[in-house]
Amino acid sequence: MSEALEPVRFENGALHYLDQRLLPAEIRYEPAQTCEEIVAAISSLAVRGAPCIGVFAAYGIAVLRSRESDEKAFATAAERVRSARPTAVNLAWAVDRVLASEDMLAEALAIHAEQRSIDAAIGENGISLFAKGARVLTHCNTGPLATAGYGTALGVLIAAQRAGLAPHAIVDETRPLLQGARLTYLECLRAGIDATLQVDAAAAIAMARGQIDAVIVGADRIARNGDTANKIGTYNLAILAAYHNIPFYVAAPRSTFDFSIASGAEIPIEERAAAEVASFGGHFVAPQEATVFNPAFDVTPGHLVAAFVTEYGVLRPPYDESIAGLAGRPHWSAMPPRASSSR
Amino acid sequence: MSEALEPVRFENGALHYLDQRLLPAEIRYEPAQTCEEIVAAISSLAVRGAPCIGVFAAYGIAVLRSRESDEKAFATAAERVRSARPTAVNLAWAVDRVLASEDMLAEALAIHAEQRSIDAAIGENGISLFAKGARVLTHCNTGPLATAGYGTALGVLIAAQRAGLAPHAIVDETRPLLQGARLTYLECLRAGIDATLQVDAAAAIAMARGQIDAVIVGADRIARNGDTANKIGTYNLAILAAYHNIPFYVAAPRSTFDFSIASGAEIPIEERAAAEVASFGGHFVAPQEATVFNPAFDVTPGHLVAAFVTEYGVLRPPYDESIAGLAGRPHWSAMPPRASSSR
Repeated sequence: MSEALEPVRFENGALHYLDQRLLPAEIRYEPAQTCEEIVAAISSLAVRGAPCIGVFAAYGIAVLRSRESDEKAFATAAERVRSARPTAVNLAWAVDRVLASEDMLAEALAIHAEQRSIDAAIGENGISLFAKGARVLTHCNTGPLATAGYGTALGVLIAAQRAGLAPHAIVDETRPLLQGARLTYLECLRAGIDATLQVDAAAAIAMARGQIDAVIVGADRIARNGDTANKIGTYNLAILAAYHNIPFYVAAPRSTFDFSIASGAEIPIEERAAAEVASFGGHFVAPQEATVFNPAFDVTPGHLVAAFVTEYGVLRPPYDESIAGLAGRPHWSAMPPRASSSR
Repeated sequence: MSEALEPVRFENGALHYLDQRLLPAEIRYEPAQTCEEIVAAISSLAVRGAPCIGVFAAYGIAVLRSRESDEKAFATAAERVRSARPTAVNLAWAVDRVLASEDMLAEALAIHAEQRSIDAAIGENGISLFAKGARVLTHCNTGPLATAGYGTALGVLIAAQRAGLAPHAIVDETRPLLQGARLTYLECLRAGIDATLQVDAAAAIAMARGQIDAVIVGADRIARNGDTANKIGTYNLAILAAYHNIPFYVAAPRSTFDFSIASGAEIPIEERAAAEVASFGGHFVAPQEATVFNPAFDVTPGHLVAAFVTEYGVLRPPYDESIAGLAGRPHWSAMPPRASSSR
């Protein structure tokens, strides 16, 4: 079994990132030592996945601090990194946390270690959901490439594989950006997980033929009632799973739960560029004047979710109670390290 | 409003076909006067859609007959056309019908006219299903390009547009081969139908947001109980429509009903090449070693179909009765021409 691909590397004082735009064809690491390089890596989507962006930016700020003695120039550079992508919550959060610390490199390392610890706990908590050899459908990319740790939904399958449960991953290609085909399938290969790729529209026939035992996906934002915003196509899968009596799970850290909103009705749906759908590799596959509806994600009603897998355990309905309980838990970094981890 | 694209043209004794592989980027007609040209057009998928292939092959046989006086050479050429695609039922049927006729060109023209007449009747019968301005989701390509007539499911929308009902087409891109993005969207533009393109996985959010009033699709094969085999992703749509209380319609000629099978369990599911999913435009978008599940179609249970639109009228449940009634109808060509058609 080969190692998981690390989207971010910090070794001997040098920061590098994996250019995810080139996957799966090419595995190429690029240096990120200057403000320009760090900002370009984030804004170009070479580094993607909200937690992964946070970890990368944390290291980036520490690197800039070590190279820039002028306070004003450093502050300007840090602000440029902080705003490299305007809507990435983890990015601003990580930059601010590093800037507020006494030892910036130590804080970046702590953020990365915390991510790994949270992901590992999600993975451990999730494996109880699956029988040996379970065939599990997943959507988009939620593995190590997305978090710079072990992943969330795909992290559960990787944990199950390490625990000897030999899961079989059914990988949705995930149009329009093909994160499933390009990234998740590759991560399954690296983790030694048997996997099958299919178009998003093949989910129902696969379920009807008994080829799917469960569905597990990640999340972008979860409301107090369990309504879950995630990559476009997730809501489709939840309905199809309910129709075929297949459990539908969501794996996400506590930080993805937005305790300030009562339901998914309060989650705005980002619509992205028409060209993501109408063109491919620079060539139009639809008429150039086509009107395109390209929502980046959809909202799955909480009542279609069988359970949420978090670093604090598995949450079951009624979600107004179990998610309220999660809200009361301490921040993960405040918890004592678990001495008995076998992994 | 520009004219519909004709996939097959026969004018002044010359046969031409539209190379559908180049759509939507280029509209190019190629001559098909020799056996080699006719066979290549079919086997390369430049001409596609089962009814369209039948019409094209019928003209092709007539052309070969007019150019080849040697009986043995003609028989060999006709057999090559007949087997240009092994599983296309309409192809063999059309070739055999032309070969058995006294005037081959007259028979080819009759086959084409019959196709137009059947399609026109489907379109007329279907428009009663939609209110003015209805927003109708469709999948794959079922327009004039697919039938060399007016189309089936898309033909109903084109008929509704001509009748002043101003439907809005929601066009599924239809992975893996993108017939919706490449062909259906173009046909909507040509017919003057307002259209919106979306990825297949966006159907559920569009339905939840009230953007879809009905779904209409074509069919490859329909069993006596209404179970319907059609392009992969159709069954997904039927379940999603049922969940959102949106009517799901199937438009197909009597020839698509297989009265010899009791249910969809008897319909074999063709699985196609992995490269259709794993590569795009000659480039791999997934790891080259990826295992792919690529079913060409799926089977929608008859109980999810609100109605079938045929040239003989709209069939409603219970389908064991209404489809049995359809089985007893005479062949369309045996019907007298309708003198009062206003179209």
